[in-house]
Amino acid sequence: MGRTHSNAYLRLNNFFPVEHRAVLKAICDSDAAKANKFVEVWGYERAETDWQKLVEAPDIDLIDICVPNVAHRDIAVAAARNGKMVMCEKPLAMSVAEAQEMVAAVEKAGVPNMVSFNYRRVPAVALARQLVEEGRIGRPFHYRATYLQDWTISPDVPQGGDALWRLDLRVAGSGVTGDLLAHSIDTAMWLNGAITRVVAKTETFIKERMHQLSGKLEAVGIDDACMFLAEFANGSMGTFESTRYARGRKNYNSFELNGADGSLYFDLEEPEYLQFFEYQQLQSGKKTESHLTGWRKIHTTNAEHPYMKHYWVPGATIGYEHTFLNALADFVAGIESGKPAQPDFRNALETQKVCDAVLESARAGRWVETGVEL
Amino acid sequence: MGRTHSNAYLRLNNFFPVEHRAVLKAICDSDAAKANKFVEVWGYERAETDWQKLVEAPDIDLIDICVPNVAHRDIAVAAARNGKMVMCEKPLAMSVAEAQEMVAAVEKAGVPNMVSFNYRRVPAVALARQLVEEGRIGRPFHYRATYLQDWTISPDVPQGGDALWRLDLRVAGSGVTGDLLAHSIDTAMWLNGAITRVVAKTETFIKERMHQLSGKLEAVGIDDACMFLAEFANGSMGTFESTRYARGRKNYNSFELNGADGSLYFDLEEPEYLQFFEYQQLQSGKKTESHLTGWRKIHTTNAEHPYMKHYWVPGATIGYEHTFLNALADFVAGIESGKPAQPDFRNALETQKVCDAVLESARAGRWVETGVEL
Amino acid sequence: MGRTHSNAYLRLNNFFPVEHRAVLKAICDSDAAKANKFVEVWGYERAETDWQKLVEAPDIDLIDICVPNVAHRDIAVAAARNGKMVMCEKPLAMSVAEAQEMVAAVEKAGVPNMVSFNYRRVPAVALARQLVEEGRIGRPFHYRATYLQDWTISPDVPQGGDALWRLDLRVAGSGVTGDLLAHSIDTAMWLNGAITRVVAKTETFIKERMHQLSGKLEAVGIDDACMFLAEFANGSMGTFESTRYARGRKNYNSFELNGADGSLYFDLEEPEYLQFFEYQQLQSGKKTESHLTGWRKIHTTNAEHPYMKHYWVPGATIGYEHTFLNALADFVAGIESGKPAQPDFRNALETQKVCDAVLESARAGRWVETGVEL
Amino acid sequence: MGRTHSNAYLRLNNFFPVEHRAVLKAICDSDAAKANKFVEVWGYERAETDWQKLVEAPDIDLIDICVPNVAHRDIAVAAARNGKMVMCEKPLAMSVAEAQEMVAAVEKAGVPNMVSFNYRRVPAVALARQLVEEGRIGRPFHYRATYLQDWTISPDVPQGGDALWRLDLRVAGSGVTGDLLAHSIDTAMWLNGAITRVVAKTETFIKERMHQLSGKLEAVGIDDACMFLAEFANGSMGTFESTRYARGRKNYNSFELNGADGSLYFDLEEPEYLQFFEYQQLQSGKKTESHLTGWRKIHTTNAEHPYMKHYWVPGATIGYEHTFLNALADFVAGIESGKPAQPDFRNALETQKVCDAVLESARAGRWVETGVEL
Repeated sequence: MGRTHSNAYLRLNNFFPVEHRAVLKAICDSDAAKANKFVEVWGYERAETDWQKLVEAPDIDLIDICVPNVAHRDIAVAAARNGKMVMCEKPLAMSVAEAQEMVAAVEKAGVPNMVSFNYRRVPAVALARQLVEEGRIGRPFHYRATYLQDWTISPDVPQGGDALWRLDLRVAGSGVTGDLLAHSIDTAMWLNGAITRVVAKTETFIKERMHQLSGKLEAVGIDDACMFLAEFANGSMGTFESTRYARGRKNYNSFELNGADGSLYFDLEEPEYLQFFEYQQLQSGKKTESHLTGWRKIHTTNAEHPYMKHYWVPGATIGYEHTFLNALADFVAGIESGKPAQPDFRNALETQKVCDAVLESARAGRWVETGVEL
Repeated sequence: MGRTHSNAYLRLNNFFPVEHRAVLKAICDSDAAKANKFVEVWGYERAETDWQKLVEAPDIDLIDICVPNVAHRDIAVAAARNGKMVMCEKPLAMSVAEAQEMVAAVEKAGVPNMVSFNYRRVPAVALARQLVEEGRIGRPFHYRATYLQDWTISPDVPQGGDALWRLDLRVAGSGVTGDLLAHSIDTAMWLNGAITRVVAKTETFIKERMHQLSGKLEAVGIDDACMFLAEFANGSMGTFESTRYARGRKNYNSFELNGADGSLYFDLEEPEYLQFFEYQQLQSGKKTESHLTGWRKIHTTNAEHPYMKHYWVPGATIGYEHTFLNALADFVAGIESGKPAQPDFRNALETQKVCDAVLESARAGRWVETGVEL
Repeated sequence: MGRTHSNAYLRLNNFFPVEHRAVLKAICDSDAAKANKFVEVWGYERAETDWQKLVEAPDIDLIDICVPNVAHRDIAVAAARNGKMVMCEKPLAMSVAEAQEMVAAVEKAGVPNMVSFNYRRVPAVALARQLVEEGRIGRPFHYRATYLQDWTISPDVPQGGDALWRLDLRVAGSGVTGDLLAHSIDTAMWLNGAITRVVAKTETFIKERMHQLSGKLEAVGIDDACMFLAEFANGSMGTFESTRYARGRKNYNSFELNGADGSLYFDLEEPEYLQFFEYQQLQSGKKTESHLTGWRKIHTTNAEHPYMKHYWVPGATIGYEHTFLNALADFVAGIESGKPAQPDFRNALETQKVCDAVLESARAGRWVETGVEL
Repeated sequence: MGRTHSNAYLRLNNFFPVEHRAVLKAICDSDAAKANKFVEVWGYERAETDWQKLVEAPDIDLIDICVPNVAHRDIAVAAARNGKMVMCEKPLAMSVAEAQEMVAAVEKAGVPNMVSFNYRRVPAVALARQLVEEGRIGRPFHYRATYLQDWTISPDVPQGGDALWRLDLRVAGSGVTGDLLAHSIDTAMWLNGAITRVVAKTETFIKERMHQLSGKLEAVGIDDACMFLAEFANGSMGTFESTRYARGRKNYNSFELNGADGSLYFDLEEPEYLQFFEYQQLQSGKKTESHLTGWRKIHTTNAEHPYMKHYWVPGATIGYEHTFLNALADFVAGIESGKPAQPDFRNALETQKVCDAVLESARAGRWVETGVEL
């Protein structure tokens, strides 16, 4: 994640006409060798091994948190207290309680803040939001989302440590719920409003994995997979599912929204497309054109599609990394315009509430209210 | 449904080398004009308006039940008592209790019997079963199914009467659960074994519709939409969803099965394809060929694909109606071989149990055991 | 082909409200055993081994020619002289000269006649024609067609005899040009008007194959593959290609038409879809909606799509065999209405002219005028 | 193009472990204001308005030519004479004669040189080459390529001047042949060897357009569209087509290669996928697995796919701009390893020969030998 964020700061002013210019001051990693290597490759001015120094450094205006979830709260709160802007990787926190502390800290300090739910910034996803706002979907009935991967099927994959902290409950807080479903929930509530009730089931398919720090086989505490049913405040119904055991799905972050007047479909493995079904009988003035209806694949690479005027020519795709760049550009533009980009910490707190309710439902085996206020 | 079944009987001996020959003796419809019209178009020997006469007719060997669900039980039980073979449209019955009566009747009479879960007979679906049996999927983790349609979104669609009895609770027994999810459940348990527990939510989006028989606006009793989470006996997890409010989806009967060694995907709107992901590292003897893995679309029109040797040349598709023909051919072949084709009434009873558990869960708002024995 | 045509006659009155009723009188095959088997399976009244008897039989009104191309002319001319209606498989003849004789014969006799370019009757292809007629494509610029198969790649496939007469030049007249490109040309000129000039190249990849009749290795005379460039009378440009050596393509009969206002795409391996791109800026009255444009996949299974009101419900596909049934229904309806269905022999003669010009161009290595008059 | 190339130099050392470090010294544009703006956005050290100064500047090691085709030759030759490395945009030159001069200049000077046929560096295209080299395609039969766009359909699009020099024959040299087909030809010969003979047709659909420099309506000299048939040295056949009048196609740079053992398909609008059909009967040792064959979509985002180990995680796509970055990285790595990256000027000269032969064939209306030596 450090690479994707560094890349975004480096490229901000090549592509977006914002007034502020990003300067890469310091990278922090508890491993000094790694930090130094990062300085060399990405052009930071200096390396640090103690984040406390970073949050207190007078030459630093913004703290970007790309560390494991367990450390989000402490760094964010300290950064806010020191008057720094805060960009934080998702999920915001280990729990709603932590998230509330973080919201309080940034709001008390009055510092700009944002959570990196970067997939809102895929042009096709932003276009989906635009079509909803344009009233093209009508009364919503259904929302269904999946986020499927397959990289932990082998029992030989260890847990814990550097690249695999996401499998370690103490460091990650949860498994796919916080890592993947948090994205799905953020997108869902952005497009379709508050989720009010959920019933969930989680599963841990591989019960024990070698822990890289202890060197021993240890029980796996995270949810390998999670599925839940949801009720939305607008009366529509939702299904959500996430796993790292869906053989053949690498980054299958998909959603479908069905309304009375139209439907939308997106899949992150083909990120250049938004699929849209328009109910023609309502659209066409004089005559029924129902023989023409069909799911259309919108290749979202025209200048009129979100973000794309800043890039290349129609038909030329952007990639995964640009979602971070787009998010950063929105964040900076939000500071400059006085209309903060979303999701800020307060908005991300609502996603955290759904995550916590999902995990609580899975534990308790019953429907749970989320308490979301949107 | 009377047309699809009549068509199957008419064409059986053109395509399948079974010994028995289908003879269209009589069609029964309480509306004599309709019955007579049917005789003319489909070449039946005679029309009846009272099904009792039919089940007692000495020149009739098989009763094919294509009437609304509310009448399945009585006709099937009477037919069995009269020693007739029984082919019954799905869902088998209005409830598990009715279904049990029907199973008892056909088993006591010793008559061949089958339920028309015709989608098992799509060549691509039958191929899915074959790949499971060949061990190509490995340990199953996930199953997800949808059955999405969009034909009842308008509040102007009435309920009840001829073509719309499926919207009338008293005649249909349920809404999408019995009509559509029954198919999904039948396929799921055929491919992935028993569903043991479910938690469900149903919704009725349009609360009142004109009833065609009373001519009055009446409350809608059916479930317009139903979604549920499932646990399978083999330890895998399932999501199921069905609706008639998914704009743009006409007959989107889809399933995906993810296992350790491979995955399968099918969608009835493109019935010629089965999609298959094969985990190459397990398959290839000497070297890793992971740069070649991908979802492959198998165009199931070769002679080596299920049923296809009876039809045309590779690349030439069959259609919806052939699922009924294939089912009938299997039924007759099962009688001739002594190995009854599935699903018979006893097998379909298990699907009925899941349907009832789903509706009970939706009413009670909690997880429910299905009691399925497979 | 005998099976597909017999099937169409048998089912005509089940699906289409025409006045005439098809009666299967006699099947003719020089091999008596085969003819008898056919009588049994398809319910013909009698078998013949000499087609001369058939064309003279007083109880027969229509001759349906499903024999290898080399015999089309003689049978058709004799049938016409005897006052029979003639349905003929494509390509119409071995050459333009033969085709002209056949046109003269049916026109002199005044008998209804049709050539079985069945793919015009795929609902999606017929819808393509409808969209062209509705003016949705605008000024045409480009047409591109392929017809790709892969069944003759192995040198072990023999030529000649029963199932493989298509590889025998003396019996087939040509290879892929008459067998596959004739379809592509017929569709192209139906959708986009006359082809006026062509330049072509053919290839025979496997130079010798065992001949099933002689039992010897013989030179292969047919074109295994053929590609050509075309000029249309309307000023648009076309590319055409056909082969039986495109590994992985079974029946890839595709076309794309690009016009100023819209584009169409079809592929016979997914026959339920017509893909349509509509240029929105011309369509929308008040504002540019170019952010919504995209290729839409029209699932051509609604009652408002060509032929589909005679079949099942939306979302339920028909298959390969129904193209023959639809063609027959059009033929009979044409007789009843007095507006003959197309392509009749005269229309198919124009396709023959293009085929001959293509083969001449390939031989001569230069552009050739087709002489098409449409 | 200046932006894509600048972006590549800026990011080279963030992603690729090459020894050399790119330093952005100077940008040259005859319009000083534009050059200065570019300096500001992209971080160049200085701006120039005269390219002669640039090619002579002692602090500059590499000249990157992103100007209209008409100026390629002079700049490249001058740069080479001054001992600079040269990276040149495609097509290499206005003609074979010019290209030969350029080859002579760089070879005489002994300077590293490369032509920016960037689409070879799409990971999926590079994977296609790898599969050919691994012998997975077998004897090749067919190659078909299209490069379709739709941005010049309106007669209101002017020609000439800044953004539209590609429509001005004197500046561009040709229309789609040099601009788009050059890409298709480069890829084709990389994958399938030399093209030896062609027959072509070009068309100019809009005969006159306003010229932005003269302000007058002027005749359009370029080819709006071009299609040709090709013979390859290896005995396979090819079709090629390019246009800017294919409504709905934005950047449809596609190719398909069919061989005895497998087939490949790629389309630049879905650049993350390579489609591959593997003929299973040849692959599987013990048994026929032909029921499993199908076109598989390889999502080329794994570490084992070309270039991808330098980027993100499996499932995370890269975009259009990375093709330039990958090309640059190969160029630099080629210098460091002593094995020059391709296509260098000499290799690109062969593509130029085919382009010239295509245009000559279109003018003369006959087959033309290309003279390609590969």
